[in-house]
Amino acid sequence: MTANEIKNITALHIEKYRKEKRAFLVEGPKMLEETLKSDFKIKAIYAFPGWKTDLNLAGISVVKISAKELSRISQLKTPNQVVVEVAMKQHEEKLPSTDEKLILALDNINNPGNLGTIVRTADWFGIQNIICSQNCVDIYNPKVLQATMGSYTRVNMYYIDLPQYLRKESEKAEIYGAVVDGESLYNIDLQNKGIIVIGNESQGVSAEITPLIKRRITIPSYGGGAESLNASIAAAVILSEFRRRTF
Amino acid sequence: MTANEIKNITALHIEKYRKEKRAFLVEGPKMLEETLKSDFKIKAIYAFPGWKTDLNLAGISVVKISAKELSRISQLKTPNQVVVEVAMKQHEEKLPSTDEKLILALDNINNPGNLGTIVRTADWFGIQNIICSQNCVDIYNPKVLQATMGSYTRVNMYYIDLPQYLRKESEKAEIYGAVVDGESLYNIDLQNKGIIVIGNESQGVSAEITPLIKRRITIPSYGGGAESLNASIAAAVILSEFRRRTF
Repeated sequence: MTANEIKNITALHIEKYRKEKRAFLVEGPKMLEETLKSDFKIKAIYAFPGWKTDLNLAGISVVKISAKELSRISQLKTPNQVVVEVAMKQHEEKLPSTDEKLILALDNINNPGNLGTIVRTADWFGIQNIICSQNCVDIYNPKVLQATMGSYTRVNMYYIDLPQYLRKESEKAEIYGAVVDGESLYNIDLQNKGIIVIGNESQGVSAEITPLIKRRITIPSYGGGAESLNASIAAAVILSEFRRRTF
Repeated sequence: MTANEIKNITALHIEKYRKEKRAFLVEGPKMLEETLKSDFKIKAIYAFPGWKTDLNLAGISVVKISAKELSRISQLKTPNQVVVEVAMKQHEEKLPSTDEKLILALDNINNPGNLGTIVRTADWFGIQNIICSQNCVDIYNPKVLQATMGSYTRVNMYYIDLPQYLRKESEKAEIYGAVVDGESLYNIDLQNKGIIVIGNESQGVSAEITPLIKRRITIPSYGGGAESLNASIAAAVILSEFRRRTF
């Protein structure tokens, strides 16, 4: 690879260039497999010479690169054989309806691992749409993508003005939110449609969004001294309870 | 600080030296506060000159250090004002009884963030004891400690021969485990005592431990394509369901 080719790929480590080039990177055979199964389009595969695969790569450019080149374009501490350049999909203009489905809304989730884990967990519990406030971390951040374990291909992500969206939806939809002083998750009435808001890792739900939450959910704590749960853990425990009761 | 003093502190980034010196590091005001509230003994605090606190630090050595020194002894990308050197506690010889309590057993949890998050979640749900297989990541790994958000001070950790322990306990205790092909978490009979086994992030419960699990728990998936949940997410969803039903 030329220095310029490497530069063009590593530029995708940065959000600004991902948006410009409408492309992003995923790494490792598992992520490649998940991306191949999806309707995302693979632009190129950069692979270690010794790498072999049973996957059908017909029509895809596979560039063999050295271990040194791989470690330069990879963002993992231990690069995992292949780096895949994927085209972003056309942004869905139409927001999902809250009339029939449960939607997750994320208010300022900053940590890449948390966002990726939330996407993976949402996928597990059959949530197809996640609405993110504009200050959430980018879904195409490599750490986010790795933490989704491929679920990024199955969950639709929307980055919009979340307070405005919730104000509008609150006219017709139930809006649940995870707060520290609400009703017990285990007793509160839950339905199989509406919006569930999960707040920031340290500040919780923002001041602008808090008054829009109609059903304030708290996960009961049992005598420990822990002050809070990790945001992805809170999302998972709440989604599990919704699914247990409304399916 | 002298180069030697810095070397002595940064040595604690490495497990071998932590064990030798029976000490570890935590970072930031929140972790300091949690450690002060606990029965862990603080050996020294290394703080940025501008750092102020309302915490009672009577009898504790506070060393003022430069921003450059702080960034050298810190393991965070953005060092958070204070680094705290803490003495390890005497190892508890006696393992906790499964007659009265729920105990979490971790089989080869490798990811520091996962272990820390599991400890924080266990603390939230009132689990006081976690038994780790010897190949689990070290609780005193800085990334583990940060992810616990201070819960490391309240949860007892034991690193032992896990298969041997489970073989012995299985004579009298219920042994639950998270597997991919077990009974639904929502229907399986749960009690408020016994052992819950959570397996490795990619391999699940190890071959040696699998036959020791008496109650095989699976978290139902809802139509998505996700193949698995993150280990800390699985632990949280299972603990929540135990607490909901048995308290």
